[in-house]
Order: sequence, then C-alpha cells, then structure tokens
Amino acid sequence: MAQVSTQFMAERIVGYLGPRGTHSEEVALCLYRGERGRFIPFASIDAAIRAVETGEVMECLVPVENSLEGSVNITLDTLAHEVNLFITKEMVWPVRHNLLVKAGTKHINVVVSHPQALAQCRYYLARFFPGAELKSVESTAEAAYLVASGAKNHAAVASLRAGEIYGLETVAADIQDNPNNYTRFIVLGRQQAEGRSGRRKTSVVCQINGERPGSLCDILQEFARRNVNLTKIESRPARTGLGVYIFFLDIDGDMEDDNIHAAVSAVKLKSLWFKNLGSYPVYAV
Amino acid sequence: MAQVSTQFMAERIVGYLGPRGTHSEEVALCLYRGERGRFIPFASIDAAIRAVETGEVMECLVPVENSLEGSVNITLDTLAHEVNLFITKEMVWPVRHNLLVKAGTKHINVVVSHPQALAQCRYYLARFFPGAELKSVESTAEAAYLVASGAKNHAAVASLRAGEIYGLETVAADIQDNPNNYTRFIVLGRQQAEGRSGRRKTSVVCQINGERPGSLCDILQEFARRNVNLTKIESRPARTGLGVYIFFLDIDGDMEDDNIHAAVSAVKLKSLWFKNLGSYPVYAV
Repeated sequence: MAQVSTQFMAERIVGYLGPRGTHSEEVALCLYRGERGRFIPFASIDAAIRAVETGEVMECLVPVENSLEGSVNITLDTLAHEVNLFITKEMVWPVRHNLLVKAGTKHINVVVSHPQALAQCRYYLARFFPGAELKSVESTAEAAYLVASGAKNHAAVASLRAGEIYGLETVAADIQDNPNNYTRFIVLGRQQAEGRSGRRKTSVVCQINGERPGSLCDILQEFARRNVNLTKIESRPARTGLGVYIFFLDIDGDMEDDNIHAAVSAVKLKSLWFKNLGSYPVYAV
Repeated sequence: MAQVSTQFMAERIVGYLGPRGTHSEEVALCLYRGERGRFIPFASIDAAIRAVETGEVMECLVPVENSLEGSVNITLDTLAHEVNLFITKEMVWPVRHNLLVKAGTKHINVVVSHPQALAQCRYYLARFFPGAELKSVESTAEAAYLVASGAKNHAAVASLRAGEIYGLETVAADIQDNPNNYTRFIVLGRQQAEGRSGRRKTSVVCQINGERPGSLCDILQEFARRNVNLTKIESRPARTGLGVYIFFLDIDGDMEDDNIHAAVSAVKLKSLWFKNLGSYPVYAV
C-alpha cells in the first residue's frame, strides 16, 4: 500500500537558498533522497520563504541557526512578521568547507568565498596560504563558479557539491577551524507536519508585557513547572520601538504531548501576541 | 574647581566605527560635546573594540542594538569572547536618513548607500524615485564620498554629518520609512564607569546549564523575586556546540543597588560562566 501511494504522490517542489551548489542545496538533496522532487534555487532567504506563501513552491528549506554565528535573523523575522507558515522538518547539518581549484592549478594566490566561510577557515588559510589574498563574494557556490570560469591562480572555499557541479578538484577537505560548526535548517510549509514518531520539537513565538518585572519569568515557569524543556529562547525586535521584543521559543516535544499543550495554552493566555509555528520531526545526518 | 580640573584633564581619545561621517561619528560628537577629545575612525566594530583593549584608544563608541534589526552580534560576541572591557555609557540615537546630492544635480538615476539604509528607505525611494537603481556600498559615509567624488546623477542616503563633511546638498531629510528606528550605542572602556546619578543600567553575561528544564527560569526568578526589571535578554552561541548558549542580561539600575547586587550574586553562583560588563549611565538625545 505504501508503495502505491508513493507512486501517485504529486511531485514535490522545494525552494532553497541558491544558487546551485550551496549548503542549502546539499541539505535538500540529502533530506529528500529517494523522493521525486524538483528543487528551485532562490536568490535570498526571504524570497524562498515568500514563494511558499504564494504557492510558487510547496515548501522551502532555509537555514535558521548556526552554532558559531547564531540565529539567521531574516528567517526568524520573516516567519514572525511577514508570512503565515509552519515549520515541518528540522535538519542539523555539519558545515564542511573545502578548498577547491580548477584542474591543473599550481599556485594559489587568491582564495575566494562568502565572507563567513573565509572567516571560519581563517587559521587554516593563514597557516597554509599565508600570502594569499582573501576575496569575498555573495555565496560559496558563486566562489566555485568563479574559479571554474577560469580566474587564474584562484581557489574557492565551498561545499563538495559545488565542486561536483563546477568540475573542480579538492585540494583539501574539511578545512574549517572549529569542529563545532553546525547549521540548523528548517523546512517551511503551508500546513502543519503530520505524524508523531521520532524526536519532535515545537516552535512558538510570542510577545509579552515587558514593562512588568518577571513577565518573562512567568512565561518560562509555565514550562518549568510541567517539566517541559526549552531548547532555545531568542529575542527579536517587535519593530514597534526600542526595547520591545518578541520571543521565539523552541520546545523539546510535540504540541500533542499533554504537558506541552497545557504549558503552551497558558503562555498563549499570558501573551499580548502569539503565533504557533508547529510541531515537526528533527533529522540529523 | 570643575573648570580647573577640566583644563588639566588628559585629552580623551575615542575610537568609533568609521569612516568619518557615519552615524557612530555623529553620536560620538554629540556625546562628548564641549570636551577636549580626538576621535579615531576604525574600519570595523571589532577593530574599534580591540583598540581599547590594546590601549591604542582610551575608549570606543560602537552600536549594540537597532530597534528594527536587533542586536549587533559582532559587538556582543567580541565583548563576551574576545576582550575584557566594561560598558561605561549608553546612548540611544534616532536613526535619520537623508537624501544627499552634489550641488547642481538635476536628475537622480542611482541611489547609493549601505544596504540596511537603502532597505530602511525602501518605500520612500519607490514612491519618489521609482526608476532609480539602488546601489550598495560599505557604509553611508562611503556613499556620500562617492557622490561628492562626482558620480553623475547619483544621490546618497546618509547622515547630515556626512553631507556636511563632503559638501553635499540635502534633497530631502528624514526619509526613513519607519519612525521607530533607533540605535543603542555603547561606550567601552578598561575601567568601570564612576558615579551614581541619573538613570543607570547594568549588563552581565552568563552561561547556565541548559540541559535541565527550568534553569533559565531559575535565573530570571532571582531578579523577579527582588522586583528587579530586565530591559533585555539575548541569547548568543557559546561556540562550544549547537544548542549551547550564553545570555546577555540588561538590568534596570546600578550594581550598587542592594536588590540588584543580591540578584546578580545569586545568578553568578548558579552560572557555569559569568562576566560583569558594568553599570553605566544612560543618555538620550
């Protein structure tokens, strides 16, 4: 039965932060391995998210947090202020940077990549290529494209997938300085995720009355007294004035768990504004 | 007596995020109005902060939060992980963008500025200059410099101070779309700020054991039960793994207030790691 229903399932159309060869594309390909699907690159995170809202794609995969750089604010702000979508999946991805060149390259005078990737390989590059100039471009994939297009004595810091797409050779793999470099990606859709199996998380966002001492504490107590663990709390501007915030809360478990449902209901009552971003399964590589 | 001591006071050397004509320079000039001082521009926020640590400057003024964009992460991360400095002043500054041209300009085909400034004037520019190309540069001050250097039919979105420095004419003042656009700037020094008068705030940063439900709630209760108000809580990566955070807490009042001193002492005992960023006066324009 399962096989039959798969066969007749509509093709999945997934947007991601492009261009082709980005970490986002790598993650999308891994997450949907073995499924029929089309993957559409978007020029920016908010364009990918809005394309779900308008129906141009069925879902999108975007980064939401990096273990070194913190939250991806445009993802959080767009989710809170601009669209009404749900998180339907989460995937944690180890960030691996690689030094890629065009076949036959003997000397590396310029290393090109996204500024964040260059920063994350700073010590490696200073040690092994102390004389090389570092050049910033819009994405790691664009760096691979530039090197493939024949920029002389250039190397790119990019994903192995980008090397594959643009036919580059790997000089060195895993050149990132800090091994604790992970990015959390989320999939966004117009409906809530179904199912209950495996590890699940729930995300909500709320605004509370910040002028009263202890109002955030009040909210957190609703979780603590029910033994519900928050995996993350993040404040972002409410955009109505300096010092006015909304809070993103990530909860360990599913909204249908009794204690989580009770805690979230209590928080909703105490909030000036509240948005449920859904419960979803958590995947790791 | 006050006059005499001012006369013999050492010249104040203050670093700020340059180049000349940025909002940071405007704020520094306003904050130290009437004092003898030299103001030194730095190319980046972390360079300005490190220059205080090395003694190249006595203090520096950097942005820490914007009411629309949120925290300036590089400022928080550098304070937590890279240097041992104190916040000695805070100033809240209304962000005002202006459209500036070279004298004699009849048509505006290109509007140039920092991408954040262009984004913050998006509706104004779309309404009054629908055909103009928007061009991004490193800073609003660089945009003013570019226009002053003779880029034909160009206008810059920049501060009035930048217009003054580069001899530009103001086509329109206060063109930002959202009137709730404020930036908090802080001054950093090697010693804690003295004095007790006026409104004061205290900032600390701590890491707690996030694996136990309610551990953040425990921390916040130390403040709530003593009727101490937090004006801000912000999580940033601890950089030791995904899902491990440090928390920046801004407290309404001075560390020498009995209830604040008691609350902070209790929080310190419950923290895995703790850093006092000092108590300081709050200024507004």
